[in-house]
Amino acid sequence: MPRYRLTIEYDGGPFVGFQRQSNGPSVQQAIEEAIEAFSGESATLFGAGRTDTGVHAEGQVVHFDLEQDKSAREVMGALNYHLKPNPVAVLEADVADPEFHSRFDAIARHYRYRIINRRAPLTFDQGYAWQVAVPLDAKAMHDAAQRLVGYHDFTTFRSIHCQAQSPLKTLDRLDVMRHGNEISVTAEARSFLHHQVRSMVGTLKLVGEGKWSADDVQAALEAADRHALGFNAPPDGLYLTRVVYPPK
Amino acid sequence: MPRYRLTIEYDGGPFVGFQRQSNGPSVQQAIEEAIEAFSGESATLFGAGRTDTGVHAEGQVVHFDLEQDKSAREVMGALNYHLKPNPVAVLEADVADPEFHSRFDAIARHYRYRIINRRAPLTFDQGYAWQVAVPLDAKAMHDAAQRLVGYHDFTTFRSIHCQAQSPLKTLDRLDVMRHGNEISVTAEARSFLHHQVRSMVGTLKLVGEGKWSADDVQAALEAADRHALGFNAPPDGLYLTRVVYPPK
Repeated sequence: MPRYRLTIEYDGGPFVGFQRQSNGPSVQQAIEEAIEAFSGESATLFGAGRTDTGVHAEGQVVHFDLEQDKSAREVMGALNYHLKPNPVAVLEADVADPEFHSRFDAIARHYRYRIINRRAPLTFDQGYAWQVAVPLDAKAMHDAAQRLVGYHDFTTFRSIHCQAQSPLKTLDRLDVMRHGNEISVTAEARSFLHHQVRSMVGTLKLVGEGKWSADDVQAALEAADRHALGFNAPPDGLYLTRVVYPPK
Repeated sequence: MPRYRLTIEYDGGPFVGFQRQSNGPSVQQAIEEAIEAFSGESATLFGAGRTDTGVHAEGQVVHFDLEQDKSAREVMGALNYHLKPNPVAVLEADVADPEFHSRFDAIARHYRYRIINRRAPLTFDQGYAWQVAVPLDAKAMHDAAQRLVGYHDFTTFRSIHCQAQSPLKTLDRLDVMRHGNEISVTAEARSFLHHQVRSMVGTLKLVGEGKWSADDVQAALEAADRHALGFNAPPDGLYLTRVVYPPK
């Protein structure tokens, strides 16, 4: 009974999120249905990150088991065929160790948040970035972001629906970089609280437009109170870009 | 009677092309209707490049006249408001010299063609790039491309529907560069023949997969015969990125 590990990409726009929900189509359901279409088996898919409604992935990692013994190449081709027209693609497929677990074995998750800083509405990036018309100071955002890096109680940046056992997390990296009118926020941690990246980006936007200082960000963090939060950035700009596992 | 010059961006997917046609919606029509919606005037829009069905623009330049005297900022805001939900945005607006002509004054046009070189189908880039599954040698493509740079008879790379008076054109630049799995072809010239960029890219793809040599490309060019052509790349990957005018 081989276990398959896939690296997948998806446009989160048409989905209620990665995980199966009763209220609409999910990425998990789309892939499970594609598995069944080509193999006849009802496999359960496990993912490294439970991305929210409208959140995208460029490097989500998932795993599932099959009764049949298929090559990884065959699995990738068949899934990509049966996934159409869903905006979900299998980028890589491997036969994994039978003990491999996409979620529990992950040692880091990387997210990227895209802001397009311009007056004009978005065309190509509608749904794929957050358009902010007011000019943002990316350097000030980056400096303020450094106050959040490290081991902290991130309660301020946590959704009330968050199921994590503890609000204590180590944020390894939070970089803000401008390239032309695009501002990218890169966040890396072993794991994140629900809405943590979008909450941090929403708060940094206040810094970028000069409404908050780096000290305000630090005070909000130290308050460990959801009410001290700026606001959540919209899901459109968020991408799960990479999941890291220990070297074999 | 002020003349306005706009730099615009559009997703060519839903349009029959830049120019008005009887068989479907055009970018020109969308903008002319937006002008009428905010000003009440029936202006005629002139564009620097007549992009084809499905071809995109990141930096098309257009001009039109109004009876009323509006500020460029007001024109930009009103057009962007009335253009919704069309995937067309005004990036910049200026009051132009009354003699300015977007098409006849242009001294160079820059195009970019995006190839995504991977086995997996496209998700985010569906309609916005050409997916090529077979591995391409971008270095070989770039080297062959240099045979096309310069003053030549480009009949081989010309659509039978091309309305240009002469097939003689000077191609200033044709660069092929790989970044990860994305291959970008950058083409610059004073003007191009109809389908010229897509024809050149289609031919270079044959070089990338090893079917054609640089000598084959040169022989096809020298044949000055449409039947010597490889084939046209699809419109999805083509972007008009910039139009250049003489310094004032």
